[in-house]
Amino acid sequence: MQPTDRMNDTPIDVPRGLTNVIVAETQLSDVRGLEGFYNYRQYSAVDLARTRSLEDVWQLLLDGALPTPLERAAFANEIASYAALDPALDPVLAIAAAASPKADPLAGLRLVLTAEGARVGSLALYDQAPDARRAALVALASKVPTVVAALARLSAGEHPVAPAPHLGFVANYLYMLHGVEAPPEHVAALSAYLVAAIDHGFNASTFTARVIASTGADAASCLVGALGSLSGPLHGGAPSRALDTLDAIGTPENIDAYITAQVLAGSRIMGFGHPVYRTEDPRSALLKQVALGFGGPRVGFAVQVEERIPVLLEQLKPGRELHTNLEWYAAIVMELCGIGRHLFTPTFAVARVLGYTANIMEQAADGKIIRPSARYVGPPAPQPVPAVMR
Amino acid sequence: MQPTDRMNDTPIDVPRGLTNVIVAETQLSDVRGLEGFYNYRQYSAVDLARTRSLEDVWQLLLDGALPTPLERAAFANEIASYAALDPALDPVLAIAAAASPKADPLAGLRLVLTAEGARVGSLALYDQAPDARRAALVALASKVPTVVAALARLSAGEHPVAPAPHLGFVANYLYMLHGVEAPPEHVAALSAYLVAAIDHGFNASTFTARVIASTGADAASCLVGALGSLSGPLHGGAPSRALDTLDAIGTPENIDAYITAQVLAGSRIMGFGHPVYRTEDPRSALLKQVALGFGGPRVGFAVQVEERIPVLLEQLKPGRELHTNLEWYAAIVMELCGIGRHLFTPTFAVARVLGYTANIMEQAADGKIIRPSARYVGPPAPQPVPAVMR
Repeated sequence: MQPTDRMNDTPIDVPRGLTNVIVAETQLSDVRGLEGFYNYRQYSAVDLARTRSLEDVWQLLLDGALPTPLERAAFANEIASYAALDPALDPVLAIAAAASPKADPLAGLRLVLTAEGARVGSLALYDQAPDARRAALVALASKVPTVVAALARLSAGEHPVAPAPHLGFVANYLYMLHGVEAPPEHVAALSAYLVAAIDHGFNASTFTARVIASTGADAASCLVGALGSLSGPLHGGAPSRALDTLDAIGTPENIDAYITAQVLAGSRIMGFGHPVYRTEDPRSALLKQVALGFGGPRVGFAVQVEERIPVLLEQLKPGRELHTNLEWYAAIVMELCGIGRHLFTPTFAVARVLGYTANIMEQAADGKIIRPSARYVGPPAPQPVPAVMR
Repeated sequence: MQPTDRMNDTPIDVPRGLTNVIVAETQLSDVRGLEGFYNYRQYSAVDLARTRSLEDVWQLLLDGALPTPLERAAFANEIASYAALDPALDPVLAIAAAASPKADPLAGLRLVLTAEGARVGSLALYDQAPDARRAALVALASKVPTVVAALARLSAGEHPVAPAPHLGFVANYLYMLHGVEAPPEHVAALSAYLVAAIDHGFNASTFTARVIASTGADAASCLVGALGSLSGPLHGGAPSRALDTLDAIGTPENIDAYITAQVLAGSRIMGFGHPVYRTEDPRSALLKQVALGFGGPRVGFAVQVEERIPVLLEQLKPGRELHTNLEWYAAIVMELCGIGRHLFTPTFAVARVLGYTANIMEQAADGKIIRPSARYVGPPAPQPVPAVMR
């Protein structure tokens, strides 16, 4: 006899948007907004971003521990074995690339991942043992840099570059984007950003991945659904908008006028503010350091804007704080690594997808469907259905 | 200055799976599990299924009222104008159809809808006025029957059939599936099922659509993500499994032995039981009536099984109740309408997508992102990151 899912029938009211509502337990990450701290398992995420490769941290989240040298080598082989795209996807890539200039390039990524899921005939997570789930997720996530780079090149009228198995995950991504191996300082800088971007609590896209995974659906469904959420303008991940702020300010002389106007109009300043952190976003502090390592006028300008904001706020809205978020220096770092602005969110996705895989594994192991309730506030029912007028 | 989304920082614990947690207000539907009742706005859903077309009920949910004759005609024109597929999607359809025998046919539907979203360069809901959101959603949902029918025919080695603008939504779906116009009793029977299947509270796929919509993402992202959840085996919508139960029983003489074995083994009997209804599922009662209208041995067998279950339960597990759910007679009705078992869930999707569109409109109007929290239960952090071993 099936479990009847007996429950307390009393509806439970919670804040709109599920703010602060604990929907699950996790062993993956913890965002302590008041402390300006977050971790991946037992380590500080920022410490990991300074010292470990993206693959190492992916393994930490996915498999539960940082790898030994043997595990690292095996994982690198596994990723390399999945990174190339099947030629059967070529027509889909062409359609995705043709559409990309009009739509967010993420739309193309969703299209190719959906096609790959359909091509391999993804099994439902529900019907898979954990090892098979993991393999399906790693296979898809390993293709994400390849797809993003291929779409970027096709949209620019260039041929895609096949993955280079001897390169690490981040170096390979830059290689497939630009067609030449990137200098090591670019790889290190982008790697720091991507490690910091892998996971960040139950943001809307990670939560989407988990809701879909809770139904036992296949890996591609979970990842594509999450990427759909990630494309939403209200989701945090749009670092290109931070550059839009710099462009709108234009020159250092214009900083005070611009910021003052925004603050007085009650308008958002893109690149500043986060719904969880009350302090400086620890990811921003890390990326500021990385950006300062590059130096140059763009970095100097970004620092100037950041430093003027508390001074101006003190005059305009005393007591109000506004800190840079992940986007502010991430945008600078990506620009310095030669990544075009239209590829900022897809590049963020390259990392965040790795976090989704770990979240999907955790949710699938839980085995309980996520099915909330709603309060009906429409007109009283039932009323008689009027006859059809013709 | 942006809204800082200030919130009560105290985490709020709720039941796992968000059972009975009120995550939003809605004016669309209300599922009263204890009463065995549900409604679409002010009307009983079952009354609507008996008396109104699928298009009328879609308009009720989407636009807020049953249509006048003029509104009905305008909506029919609108649907017809969107129903055909752009020839640019042909290669995607071919890939989707080739993959369908291996995967759930829903995978092909997700692929084509994603491609269509990319092709038209879907704007984010966030960037659209309500009228534009509605148009984008109606355009995609109007294509779902066309895509499902085309995939079914292509997988069977047949040419797709173009939509017939003079037919209603349900008649047109059956026409595109079978290549000939269906008898009116098939259209009426399937229509009753599809109206009853449009919406049903915040099930996992509808909730997925709303989480994605809450980020302001585009219409295709919301619908495709929701369809991903719908494919999950733990989501309710898999009516083909009800026929699997009938097949496993085989003959009337075997009913008692089969049911007894399942009950004693604690196994689920597909087609029976629902997490919300304590009583008979009102949708099942409706579809039983519809099925009895067809008559025949298959219907009689299904009724026999249904009627033996309370008798056997009374002996085996006194006090335990087990009622048919939507799937039991829905499967019979679809079979009698000539719909293949592999198309049961995609046919359910044809209706449920209409409900998603109304839910997405409602959520997009709300404007607040759905971003819950998690409780970190991993090892205490931060611990020092060990040096990389090479």
